[in-house]
Amino acid sequence: MNAFLAEAVTLASQAKEASAALGRASGGVRNAALAEIAKRLRGRDGRAILAANAKDLIAARKDGLSAAMLDRLQLNPSRLEAMAAGASQVAALPDPIDTVMDGWTRSDGLRIRRVRVPLGVCLVLYESRPNVTIDVASLCLKSGNAAILRGGKEARGTNLALGALIRRSLTASGLPVEAIQVVRHSDRALVPALLSQRDFIDLAIPRGGASLVETVLEHAAMPILKHLDGICHVFLDASADPDLSRRIVLNAKVQRPGVCNAAETLLAHAASAERLLPAIARDLSKAGVQIRACPAARAILGKGVKTRPIDGTDWEREYLDLEINMGVVADLDAAIRHINTYGSGHTDAIVTRDLAAAARFQREVDASSVMVNASTRLADGFEYGLGAEVGISTDKFHARGPVGLEGLTTYKWLVEGEGHIR
Amino acid sequence: MNAFLAEAVTLASQAKEASAALGRASGGVRNAALAEIAKRLRGRDGRAILAANAKDLIAARKDGLSAAMLDRLQLNPSRLEAMAAGASQVAALPDPIDTVMDGWTRSDGLRIRRVRVPLGVCLVLYESRPNVTIDVASLCLKSGNAAILRGGKEARGTNLALGALIRRSLTASGLPVEAIQVVRHSDRALVPALLSQRDFIDLAIPRGGASLVETVLEHAAMPILKHLDGICHVFLDASADPDLSRRIVLNAKVQRPGVCNAAETLLAHAASAERLLPAIARDLSKAGVQIRACPAARAILGKGVKTRPIDGTDWEREYLDLEINMGVVADLDAAIRHINTYGSGHTDAIVTRDLAAAARFQREVDASSVMVNASTRLADGFEYGLGAEVGISTDKFHARGPVGLEGLTTYKWLVEGEGHIR
Repeated sequence: MNAFLAEAVTLASQAKEASAALGRASGGVRNAALAEIAKRLRGRDGRAILAANAKDLIAARKDGLSAAMLDRLQLNPSRLEAMAAGASQVAALPDPIDTVMDGWTRSDGLRIRRVRVPLGVCLVLYESRPNVTIDVASLCLKSGNAAILRGGKEARGTNLALGALIRRSLTASGLPVEAIQVVRHSDRALVPALLSQRDFIDLAIPRGGASLVETVLEHAAMPILKHLDGICHVFLDASADPDLSRRIVLNAKVQRPGVCNAAETLLAHAASAERLLPAIARDLSKAGVQIRACPAARAILGKGVKTRPIDGTDWEREYLDLEINMGVVADLDAAIRHINTYGSGHTDAIVTRDLAAAARFQREVDASSVMVNASTRLADGFEYGLGAEVGISTDKFHARGPVGLEGLTTYKWLVEGEGHIR
Repeated sequence: MNAFLAEAVTLASQAKEASAALGRASGGVRNAALAEIAKRLRGRDGRAILAANAKDLIAARKDGLSAAMLDRLQLNPSRLEAMAAGASQVAALPDPIDTVMDGWTRSDGLRIRRVRVPLGVCLVLYESRPNVTIDVASLCLKSGNAAILRGGKEARGTNLALGALIRRSLTASGLPVEAIQVVRHSDRALVPALLSQRDFIDLAIPRGGASLVETVLEHAAMPILKHLDGICHVFLDASADPDLSRRIVLNAKVQRPGVCNAAETLLAHAASAERLLPAIARDLSKAGVQIRACPAARAILGKGVKTRPIDGTDWEREYLDLEINMGVVADLDAAIRHINTYGSGHTDAIVTRDLAAAARFQREVDASSVMVNASTRLADGFEYGLGAEVGISTDKFHARGPVGLEGLTTYKWLVEGEGHIR
């Protein structure tokens, strides 16, 4: 066994052992640990974290990291306070564990219940932002799961300081320190070794860009909670209201273009394209959005708005930037077909006044969230009222769309009889 | 692309296409197809199936299949009637599709619902029993999923005749014939090719022995619904009632030893072993069960009952036969530790009169079903009242324990606003 595998087995088996103790801990104990984390972030330990972060920043500047990367890495008192507030908010959520999902009694008296329990051990892999450490540690603790956290190399010092803070909080609450382990080793070779520990780790969660997700997909022997792409569409139906259309398209594209639930493609019904597209294209242009349009859309827009001809492969691109595809489709059927062909099953929206069209769109579009007269940007755990967001899943298995604490749980069947046999 | 891959892509892409039509079909249409299948099994098509089965049996006898295998392969009028009754029963179950799981309205009027939808396409791999073809076709149709079915080579003729019957039933109900496809090709090389079709197939379900499950685990690029082992325990607590203990142990081991929810290991609390084990061991011996016992149990049983000394590796064996491990443990903690170490997370039972012991056992044993004073044999979709059983999952992801139609569904978020943006 090489050194990486040995370290992975140690981390994973310790986490498994700790998960049993966590599973026995009451919700009150788990909440106390979260309160302790929040308290320590606001106290002396918090200052130690800012000091560790300052060192990481110096090294990162030396390594020539981009300004955007440095900003993601940097902590300051207000970001520290946001992390503490986040831990407190998670503590205040309803306990997802021991909830009875359903239950009944057979006519012969056998009692059957389905009760939510923790998954066990989560492995979370993420990138430069150190606030993720507290975020996922809180979600895992709240849901009774042990966690192994592996953040970006450039945030290593900060993350280790956060790990020490979490360890002290666990000890103060009577929980094993191995319940939340921050990986010390910065070598990338440890990642595949951790991803091979199917016997000990129940779920892998990559939080980061496409290359991180690809690595996890390639190596993980356990289930994964992930989303790959957010190729989200807004479709303007024949009956779409012009004001609603402008508002929703602009919000879906421009409010925060770099995230997965931002729109990448605007489709318009042939019967509404002339009526709606010119004003929307002007809005988008004014907001700095580059438009790639199909011939029919270009003909409608004419020379009043700058557009580029669309390339067939553009329909499958996730820009994450101020760029949008614009297409005219023959009808609702063509729109649904286009979305199910080129979309990523994340979030798609229709703007319409037609009840039947709304119903068909919601039924036939195969996506985790299907919206009527609302912006795709609303597809989010907090916006949906889940209280927390573990991530957004474009898979259909276990959890789909915005995933709250429920996604970190499984269930067991509890059956009670008085000598019942078969 | 080799011929197998080409065939796999054709089957899988056709299934995906058909799944969209199935997803649009009402529950009434899906039920009509099931009623048609039942009707045809009871009519002329049923006789054609018996004829095809007779040919398969002749070939199987020539190939020297065992009597047990021949029995599994053989159909007769009463087995055909059972298949028809099964399809009718599935039709009569509540529709799992379009159920609203939960929903709420935000204070700003945005409406959010979570609604059950089909997974899409299921690939089911199974062995010699041809009744599985109708069973899984019914479950998939009922839950709005397209399916690709691949049964055992020896049942090929029977399965193709059943496939033709299903196709006619689909056509009669206005559904695409590709909704349920029985694989024509008998070559094993097709299986890995099918299991690679992640873009088209949403779920793989192996129904069969360990080697089939291993093949699927090795090759499947999509999620899997499976159970590997059923190493189920019965633990007799210090306070266990003697009559209940005898009844439950005997049922758990003997009633049908060849299935996954039969018990493989009996553990007794040191404070009850002397009181309980002798009578139970006599019951088991009388029923033809071979006992492998730990030294403490052997000392208690003495020469009155024939036992063999247990080997350390026996605790991890799934006998599926009239054999049982017998061990004495120091206390409840030791029992839980033993079960979580050697068990397979399937089903474990405690016999006790002690409320606190029952609660701790149910909380701390990490298994899909945890029973109090009831036989492990009751861990079953029909016994639990699910109305149908897709399988039993020892995984924690998506579905756990006995899986009914719900396990063949996912959900989508339906969101409706009046111009809501973020």
